[in-house]
Amino acid sequence: MIQPIQALKDYIRFPSVSTDPAYADGMLGARGYAQELLEQLGFTVEVVPTELHPILYAERFGNPDWPHIVIYGHYDVQPADPFDLWTSEPFDPQERNGRLYGRGAADNKGPTIVHMTALSRVLDACPELPLNITYVIEGEEEIGSESMPKFFDLYAERLSKADFILVSDTGSPNTEQLVITTALRGLVDFEIKLRGPKSDLHSGIHGGAVYNPLQALMEICASLHNPDGSVNVPGFYEDVVPVLDWEREELKRYPETVESYQAMLDVPAFYPANGLSPLEAVRFAPTLEFNGIGGGYQGEGSKTVIPSQAFAKITCRLVANQDPVKIQQQLFATIRERCPQGVSMTIRDGGIAAAYLAIPPERPNTPADQPESLARAFKSADKAIAKCFGNAPIYLREGGSIPVIADFNKRAGLEALMIGLFTPIDNLHAPDEGFDLGLMENAITAFEQIFKDIAGI
Amino acid sequence: MIQPIQALKDYIRFPSVSTDPAYADGMLGARGYAQELLEQLGFTVEVVPTELHPILYAERFGNPDWPHIVIYGHYDVQPADPFDLWTSEPFDPQERNGRLYGRGAADNKGPTIVHMTALSRVLDACPELPLNITYVIEGEEEIGSESMPKFFDLYAERLSKADFILVSDTGSPNTEQLVITTALRGLVDFEIKLRGPKSDLHSGIHGGAVYNPLQALMEICASLHNPDGSVNVPGFYEDVVPVLDWEREELKRYPETVESYQAMLDVPAFYPANGLSPLEAVRFAPTLEFNGIGGGYQGEGSKTVIPSQAFAKITCRLVANQDPVKIQQQLFATIRERCPQGVSMTIRDGGIAAAYLAIPPERPNTPADQPESLARAFKSADKAIAKCFGNAPIYLREGGSIPVIADFNKRAGLEALMIGLFTPIDNLHAPDEGFDLGLMENAITAFEQIFKDIAGI
Repeated sequence: MIQPIQALKDYIRFPSVSTDPAYADGMLGARGYAQELLEQLGFTVEVVPTELHPILYAERFGNPDWPHIVIYGHYDVQPADPFDLWTSEPFDPQERNGRLYGRGAADNKGPTIVHMTALSRVLDACPELPLNITYVIEGEEEIGSESMPKFFDLYAERLSKADFILVSDTGSPNTEQLVITTALRGLVDFEIKLRGPKSDLHSGIHGGAVYNPLQALMEICASLHNPDGSVNVPGFYEDVVPVLDWEREELKRYPETVESYQAMLDVPAFYPANGLSPLEAVRFAPTLEFNGIGGGYQGEGSKTVIPSQAFAKITCRLVANQDPVKIQQQLFATIRERCPQGVSMTIRDGGIAAAYLAIPPERPNTPADQPESLARAFKSADKAIAKCFGNAPIYLREGGSIPVIADFNKRAGLEALMIGLFTPIDNLHAPDEGFDLGLMENAITAFEQIFKDIAGI
Repeated sequence: MIQPIQALKDYIRFPSVSTDPAYADGMLGARGYAQELLEQLGFTVEVVPTELHPILYAERFGNPDWPHIVIYGHYDVQPADPFDLWTSEPFDPQERNGRLYGRGAADNKGPTIVHMTALSRVLDACPELPLNITYVIEGEEEIGSESMPKFFDLYAERLSKADFILVSDTGSPNTEQLVITTALRGLVDFEIKLRGPKSDLHSGIHGGAVYNPLQALMEICASLHNPDGSVNVPGFYEDVVPVLDWEREELKRYPETVESYQAMLDVPAFYPANGLSPLEAVRFAPTLEFNGIGGGYQGEGSKTVIPSQAFAKITCRLVANQDPVKIQQQLFATIRERCPQGVSMTIRDGGIAAAYLAIPPERPNTPADQPESLARAFKSADKAIAKCFGNAPIYLREGGSIPVIADFNKRAGLEALMIGLFTPIDNLHAPDEGFDLGLMENAITAFEQIFKDIAGI
């Protein structure tokens, strides 16, 4: 049987930063470790080559009549910088106050260990568990799952035979109150690069004649929001699906107030757009966020240059029904149109992903053709979570993106059951990422029950 | 006698980057080298301690009735980054096609070697040269000459006995056409630092609720210029002195067209404000330039964070009659006023400097009380330059700043004769800084004559 805390520590120790070629060894190590655990559980593991980071495709097959689920996860993590803001080393996991700290502890190594441990316990008690399981663990989730389309070209047909997909890569408000995630935001990822003069110039000798590319960049970027905080790109909100009443009702059960949320983030004020509250804005509205900007002198003190180059890394989050292709086209066209003549611009296309919406059974907007097996799994999860955590789950859309989930739906016809296992204090994508060990143990117990229910034993 | 090329190479090899504490050894080395040369020339050198980089104060005194000049220079240089854009190492000087490349080659080590070599030749021929000379070579010119006010507290009285100050830290259009610089721009140097959430946030989970500090920074910075390129800060242009007709006439002699200037900088278009041509704008108008911006993810690819912090390093160039204290106050007040509530701001005050205007003899705006010795030096320089370079000098205001020159004037009552020795292709403050060795030799010959004329021999 898997020892979850030890397994999670071992998994975190492999620094699997997919975006940075310097971490190739960490990627290899994390993938090998996940493969080893799956093989211990009796899975047949294929390492599917891609242009960048291979995908683990693992199967446990018995009888074709058994229920069949796909479990999705990713072995890659976000970069750990800024390193100096971590209390302990990001890739040397440390337990403090019932939490385990390290890059990837929550996103997504902890939840993967939860699923595997639950499975190992169920299989230990019932080696003949009547459940077909396919694992898909990819290595490019944090960089847009770019190898997944080709993977679907080869594997979509096999995957389409499954009933639904199970995912734990979403959030819950705290360790006692889980969320079943009903939607994920999509993504448009790009970078604006500007070039002004061919090299950095002395700002005294040449200042006043040329368009400083930092100035041009900031003017273009500043034009992308209206004063009310909404995105100032034509057509951006055109296809946005309105929030339904039952969704607002569920949000009322969410154990976080605007005040407590503000205290947690430690911001002087919120800035939600579109007439939404901050808690609504992060799940129901699309955004345009600047993830990184740079150009010119970065060191101590000052340097009187007009820089040659400038960049802004930008991602938009999209909500259900927004077409990422259309939004990307509109964004690029708008930005190019707003680029002044004094500089030249290139846009790096970092990829796009559609949003995904998965409505639980018996809601006003539940699709009529929802598979019975998925409806049953939703109900099992509801019950198991209520029992193991003392509170029934809340059904909520989430602000994060798992680009590949919409693709599982489009390419293999699979709907998703998404059970959120990380909480706001887990600091995803940020320094001091951590995972709660109490939640981990409760989640393992809940998933034991869910696996048994899905298998019908 | 000083061998100028060898001496300049030796001087460049000391990486004297004043802004970065990592270069303390380079500062020490460059200062020691300059001191050694001065002592060789027979100067008595005092190393004046300051809070940061000591100042060399050197004297050659004979008879109090002799003419007395002050020669100013600086042994510090700008940072060399981005290092990867240099053809050869910035601190390993290399000769290529009659030019010597290295950080500081032109700004200001080359001109210092020109003065010293000319002096060594004159003194070799005439050891009893009837000229009192005071050298002031500081180590903080590139970072705002912050130690100079205290230096003036101690030395202004001694300096005030001199007739005028001689400076070669300004530019000329090419190696055949020198400029005598009639003005220097002033400087207001500062950095805006913004903080939003207490740590970087996942842009999916929290995107839409908070004011992204990169967005706030870019909105504030974008507000600092009007669409026509002029600076959008109340009162910024209030005290700007108009350009005089004789100044426009001199500029017409400047051997650079808008087209050749554009080709040299390789910009798609110019962007001068205030109805000026690009060649006018860089010398007659004040500016606000962004020298460096940063925040969030700086690595390869993308990282979906809302960063906690952002910065913009900014310098304004001021023209004659603008009060840097007043401009700084107005800038800081305007920027603070434009800071949204969702972020907190600090402003790092990087110092200020007044502009300086030095009008040659017999012009409509020449001060009635211009010292006779300065007028004589202007005329000598005019003649010597015409002879050694084949063209009479052009009298022009320059865009760069030498903050301390205005202070020499205010504190010690000294007017300045500024002979520009670097040219636009010298890449000051940028990669591949270099100095023309043909110009160096002609300038040495011209200064030999100027020193003799001032001494009256």
